[in-house]
Amino acid sequence: MRALYWDGSTARVTDRPDPTSGPGTAVVRVRLAGVCNTDLELTKGYLSFRGVLGHEFVGEVLEGPDEWKGKRVVGEINFPCGACQACARGMKRHCARRAVMGIVDADGCFAERIEVPVENLHAVPAGVRDEQAVFVEPLAAAFEILEQRHVTPGMNVLVLGDGKLGQLAAQVLHTTGASVTVVGRHPDKLKKLERRGIDAVLFDQRPKAQADLVVEATGSAEGFALAVQSTRPRGTLVLKSTVAARGQVDLTPVVVNEIEVVGSRCGSFAPALRALAAGTIDVMPLIGGRVPLRDAASALEMAQKPGMLKVLIDAS
Amino acid sequence: MRALYWDGSTARVTDRPDPTSGPGTAVVRVRLAGVCNTDLELTKGYLSFRGVLGHEFVGEVLEGPDEWKGKRVVGEINFPCGACQACARGMKRHCARRAVMGIVDADGCFAERIEVPVENLHAVPAGVRDEQAVFVEPLAAAFEILEQRHVTPGMNVLVLGDGKLGQLAAQVLHTTGASVTVVGRHPDKLKKLERRGIDAVLFDQRPKAQADLVVEATGSAEGFALAVQSTRPRGTLVLKSTVAARGQVDLTPVVVNEIEVVGSRCGSFAPALRALAAGTIDVMPLIGGRVPLRDAASALEMAQKPGMLKVLIDAS
Repeated sequence: MRALYWDGSTARVTDRPDPTSGPGTAVVRVRLAGVCNTDLELTKGYLSFRGVLGHEFVGEVLEGPDEWKGKRVVGEINFPCGACQACARGMKRHCARRAVMGIVDADGCFAERIEVPVENLHAVPAGVRDEQAVFVEPLAAAFEILEQRHVTPGMNVLVLGDGKLGQLAAQVLHTTGASVTVVGRHPDKLKKLERRGIDAVLFDQRPKAQADLVVEATGSAEGFALAVQSTRPRGTLVLKSTVAARGQVDLTPVVVNEIEVVGSRCGSFAPALRALAAGTIDVMPLIGGRVPLRDAASALEMAQKPGMLKVLIDAS
Repeated sequence: MRALYWDGSTARVTDRPDPTSGPGTAVVRVRLAGVCNTDLELTKGYLSFRGVLGHEFVGEVLEGPDEWKGKRVVGEINFPCGACQACARGMKRHCARRAVMGIVDADGCFAERIEVPVENLHAVPAGVRDEQAVFVEPLAAAFEILEQRHVTPGMNVLVLGDGKLGQLAAQVLHTTGASVTVVGRHPDKLKKLERRGIDAVLFDQRPKAQADLVVEATGSAEGFALAVQSTRPRGTLVLKSTVAARGQVDLTPVVVNEIEVVGSRCGSFAPALRALAAGTIDVMPLIGGRVPLRDAASALEMAQKPGMLKVLIDAS
């Protein structure tokens, strides 16, 4: 089959062996996949991954249990061992021995077909289009914030970054009734938020008052310091981006102001699917481009362009 | 009066003007004061403080409201404005315009007398000795952890550091029924903990299993990375030391493992006084030395010695 393979120095579309289903797994024919910043990070050396890239997809089950065959599905990306302490606690996304689709020890979905554990599959409701369903993985990561913190209607929330993650986080946080302000660098992206009734301003017009909850979604190394400055004493800083997490960081104000820094990664798919089915989250304006699988390498290049939103890879 | 004054380059005992009480303040005659690592940090340039050092004391009220005169007291160290948003929220220790005794814009307690806002005073119960009461401020900072997190009896707690702060934090956390292990470098200090029924081991014998809650109290720049490694996925890392908070820090595992990093500073005095009165916390073994006020400069030197516990300054 055709797949975008990362060999440690180049990402190229090549012929890869067809996956087969084993005990507890299914083979899914990929219809549409999405490029995430993590894919770009992997091609810069993050986690020393080698294999087929990609972890955001919607497809249909080709092989596996009868009750799944032919179903349109999305799939959670952490493949748990089922036996470690984290799995025993029900924290399968934190399995100590997990493989992660297209990120750690498992081939990804920039391919015609992919093998996925059946327990990771979620059927996509009929009313949700492929172009929406392909956003379930990053949307679930945005909903993870609400799993971690009780965001109340009286809160002031600040989202730093108007990119894909910032846009999704802002929409999710906006559902709580909280006052949400997004700070970004791109007037066109900020307008997309304003159309949803979300306050959105350029960095130099950001609110002076510190927020109750700040989401760091800039993906830039400077983002963390700004996020700390923007969080009120005893407020919460949700750290979404590993890029902002590395480097020279002064945590002194975290101690002095008793800030809670909450690392936040993947989320459960169910709330994201419900939100798409109900139409409470609108992902369609976040599509920045669409490329056939045979040109998937150029999809990565496209995704690197400043200001680019979600690039989709069409594998149908 | 006699006081230990820090002029930006030297800490020396000198003659300073007697403080007088104003509206809402009292003058306290200091009996006993304690040296904190923050005092040592200030003499290395932290916060550019100039003035009389010291913020841990017990004394008796000389001037002020009649109902306080002659009372034996301890005093909270943050002097709030009473008008800012943090004060309005009841978070007076986070007042945006606060002075802090012996740390920010206010003279400290390494002196014969000190002016303190009356609202900051707490009467010391008769059964609590001066040598215990002088520990109320750092003990309150240890109790702050329990204000911030619900530590349950089923938890595994790891305290990194067997110094003053680690010892107090371990004792406080031990009151919850949780399994508490302290990791340190000093066999004599670890023994003090073992005598209280708290597990205490050297660094190279530290538990391999990650803990539910980790307290960073090493006061060393390397402490943070070790604390992150020692925290289980979705666990909590309480950051007590600003020293460990500066420098090259990689927060990537905080994001990936969804760790909550909770900055923790000062606490309320009332729980600390209750614990000392009840005898549930034993501070007497933590006294490392005692020096008269006229030799207070040497108290700072003594406190810098590796392995030294609390140095008291006798101002009576």
